[in-house]
Amino acid sequence: MTGEEIKSAHKQYNLQSWSRQKSINPIPLQKAEGIYFWDYDGNRYTDMSSQLVNMNLGFGNRAIGDAIKAQVDRFCFMAPSYAVETRSELAKTIIGLMPDNMGKVFFTNAGADANENAIKMARMYTGRNKVFSRYRSYHGSSFGAGNLTGEPRRFPLEPGIPGFVKFFDPYIYREAISFESEEAATAYYLAKLEEQLGYEGASSVAAIVMETITGSNGVIIPPKGYLPGVRALCDKYGILMICDEVMAGWCRTGTMFAFQHFGVKPDIVTFAKGVTCGYVPLGGVVVSKSIAAYFDDNLLSCGLTYSGHPLACAAGLACVRYYGEADILGNVNRVGKALGETLEKLKEAHPCVGDVRYIGLFSAVELVRDKKTREPLVPYGKDPEGLMGKIIKLLSARRFMTYSHENCVLVAPPLIITEAQLTEELSKLDEVLGIVDKEML
Amino acid sequence: MTGEEIKSAHKQYNLQSWSRQKSINPIPLQKAEGIYFWDYDGNRYTDMSSQLVNMNLGFGNRAIGDAIKAQVDRFCFMAPSYAVETRSELAKTIIGLMPDNMGKVFFTNAGADANENAIKMARMYTGRNKVFSRYRSYHGSSFGAGNLTGEPRRFPLEPGIPGFVKFFDPYIYREAISFESEEAATAYYLAKLEEQLGYEGASSVAAIVMETITGSNGVIIPPKGYLPGVRALCDKYGILMICDEVMAGWCRTGTMFAFQHFGVKPDIVTFAKGVTCGYVPLGGVVVSKSIAAYFDDNLLSCGLTYSGHPLACAAGLACVRYYGEADILGNVNRVGKALGETLEKLKEAHPCVGDVRYIGLFSAVELVRDKKTREPLVPYGKDPEGLMGKIIKLLSARRFMTYSHENCVLVAPPLIITEAQLTEELSKLDEVLGIVDKEML
Ligand SMILES: Cc1ncc(COP(=O)(O)O)c(C=O)c1O
Ligand SMILES: Cc1ncc(COP(=O)(O)O)c(C=O)c1O
Repeated sequence: MTGEEIKSAHKQYNLQSWSRQKSINPIPLQKAEGIYFWDYDGNRYTDMSSQLVNMNLGFGNRAIGDAIKAQVDRFCFMAPSYAVETRSELAKTIIGLMPDNMGKVFFTNAGADANENAIKMARMYTGRNKVFSRYRSYHGSSFGAGNLTGEPRRFPLEPGIPGFVKFFDPYIYREAISFESEEAATAYYLAKLEEQLGYEGASSVAAIVMETITGSNGVIIPPKGYLPGVRALCDKYGILMICDEVMAGWCRTGTMFAFQHFGVKPDIVTFAKGVTCGYVPLGGVVVSKSIAAYFDDNLLSCGLTYSGHPLACAAGLACVRYYGEADILGNVNRVGKALGETLEKLKEAHPCVGDVRYIGLFSAVELVRDKKTREPLVPYGKDPEGLMGKIIKLLSARRFMTYSHENCVLVAPPLIITEAQLTEELSKLDEVLGIVDKEML
Repeated sequence: MTGEEIKSAHKQYNLQSWSRQKSINPIPLQKAEGIYFWDYDGNRYTDMSSQLVNMNLGFGNRAIGDAIKAQVDRFCFMAPSYAVETRSELAKTIIGLMPDNMGKVFFTNAGADANENAIKMARMYTGRNKVFSRYRSYHGSSFGAGNLTGEPRRFPLEPGIPGFVKFFDPYIYREAISFESEEAATAYYLAKLEEQLGYEGASSVAAIVMETITGSNGVIIPPKGYLPGVRALCDKYGILMICDEVMAGWCRTGTMFAFQHFGVKPDIVTFAKGVTCGYVPLGGVVVSKSIAAYFDDNLLSCGLTYSGHPLACAAGLACVRYYGEADILGNVNRVGKALGETLEKLKEAHPCVGDVRYIGLFSAVELVRDKKTREPLVPYGKDPEGLMGKIIKLLSARRFMTYSHENCVLVAPPLIITEAQLTEELSKLDEVLGIVDKEML
């Protein structure tokens, strides 16, 4: 097929995620390597979002590709009830990367079903029904994960599942109160959370589910002491702490998992994306030893055809090993430092930049109409003038490919990006922010 | 890793689907080819269930394997918003296999999320809330698909999603009434369904979701006229007809899709398993042209990271083409005839066989304590003496590998099986049924 044929077949035969189909205009892509990809006219684009923050190692990683091919020559699939080398080895490897309280892995296909199964297990294990999660969050789009999700992508799934309760994120930049310190903010949010647990009946709450660092909804990094405080509340009330590391995990933030920044041990961790970089779909749920032990004698009433898919596990094993062997964390921390410094400069330079938040190679630029009032460039849940779409278009015209959510632009390049490549790309962002300053405020 | 190490790591680090973990004893598998697979001691097993009724083409299919490798050399992944050759081409190919009312494909990772998205779309398109599905059914284990599911695997997801309503399957063999003809049975079931639609308020029902032919729950084949009757009820009340073809689709029953046996055009078809034979996880939702058109201007509020995964679509394209090129339907109908004839003989010969149901290479043997009273060998939802497990063990001791559900043993070999291979395997089944006759009734 030619590029034009691919594009026109896409529009004619595919339903595209999160879109009005008439308005889509997909670029047909021919090849990809590292942080770049090319269309059929030979134009080169830079991947500044790691696609959907999953291609942590970029395109064309040889180690993963070779592992996939080798597994094809053995067998692609075997039902979950058989023991298979890649499945056993990857589970063992993942537990080896986890804190010492963690015991076993239940593999799924992606992020949404990882969260689905995490809640199911939490309800079975605790015998409790309610599940807490936060408003500014995305956990997937199936009924369970979508009801965990706090942002508007949840609405088409309502009326939702009984017992799903939302609480507020520690989103300090958008808080009416101005706090004297991070610690003061933490104390405020934890007190509010405990108050709400009281109103809902803490003893009926099975789990508190959080993106360790909120991703799509604007890279919201919890203040100091927040996660240990949530951990303490969980312990106090017998609630399980579930960290969704689908986006923040696998080296993205400068540690293997984001919760490692905060010195906490979750009871359940969900993952996907970076475990294979999306080369083959894979997700999973890691549970503590005591949860694992519960299912020794109690039926694990969870299952899916492709649980622990051998080909996906082969890709995962190669990918996870590569993180270590190539010292990806070293690069994330080195280049991440440069990213943070540049973002701070952009914030200083541009009236349209209200806040920049970054950790490792995970960052968001929050756009405002007015730095003082912090009025967002577009109101929550709406974009009547299509401003954010225009900004993304200005960026993509410069071959800087990323996406936006609400009034935030995401910057999360593959973790193999060099400082020189990053500098080149951020100068495009600088340019576009200048246009926003002039034309959109 | 040695076989022993693989097995012990599996038990130590994996949570296995639908199991009490203490009771699992997984066979470590080393290689696989066609309808056979081997453990690390060189024992050969015959796959008489196509794993989870997904490996329609068996192991080691070269066309699919080569397509995967070729796509690895291009790129494994690209976000759903880009146009990609395998994604466009597979969507086009699938629509080409569908009735002329069908318009577009939304790709997912597997069967559960295909059903999740089908219900979401049905609710958005109709603006209605309720969803009908049947008791003896399995549609997946995430919250949405699991609430569609009627059998006990639904229970851990309850209290469920409001608006999910169950109706009875046309399970003639287990009906208290004995019908004069298939037509009489059909009239009865359709009248009951219409009565129930009335009680629930037909105008608030978005969709009726059915496995076209119920799979896991015992290969229940709808009587003549049933599906056209449901279609007519759907038309009468403005309800969408959703056929779950996750298990029954892709040549399994002797037609490309099972609904083609019955001369009906669904509004939505969900698929997974056989589309890639599970070589790479893939599922999807096919929607009618009018549903597709609705999402031209209305937001399709569905999405997942791996929607239309390029590597999965490459596998799917090779697999779907192979069905045609290798005349798989020809083999299914030829060998399926032999399967049916042998099953009828087994039913005649064995007191423990109450019913055999078969279509194409999709069949179930329903076991009873007493042919006359039809008392099932094990009561619904229970198996206090572990009889079904014992029968599966007797079969696997003879290297006949399949699984059971309630009082049914599934026989659904890869669609490439020869008549000679089938005969060899069914003689093992004959032997085991003889033991059941003697020792378990
Ligand atoms: C934090 C988080 N959780 C879950 C998901 C859902 O993952 P998937 O799209 O693979 O279902 C996402 C997807 O972006 C995510 O960012
Ligand atoms: C008819 C049917 N629908 C849906 C599913 C769920 O598919 P998956 O396990 O891929 O989620 C299955 C799985 O066996 C099935 O048989």
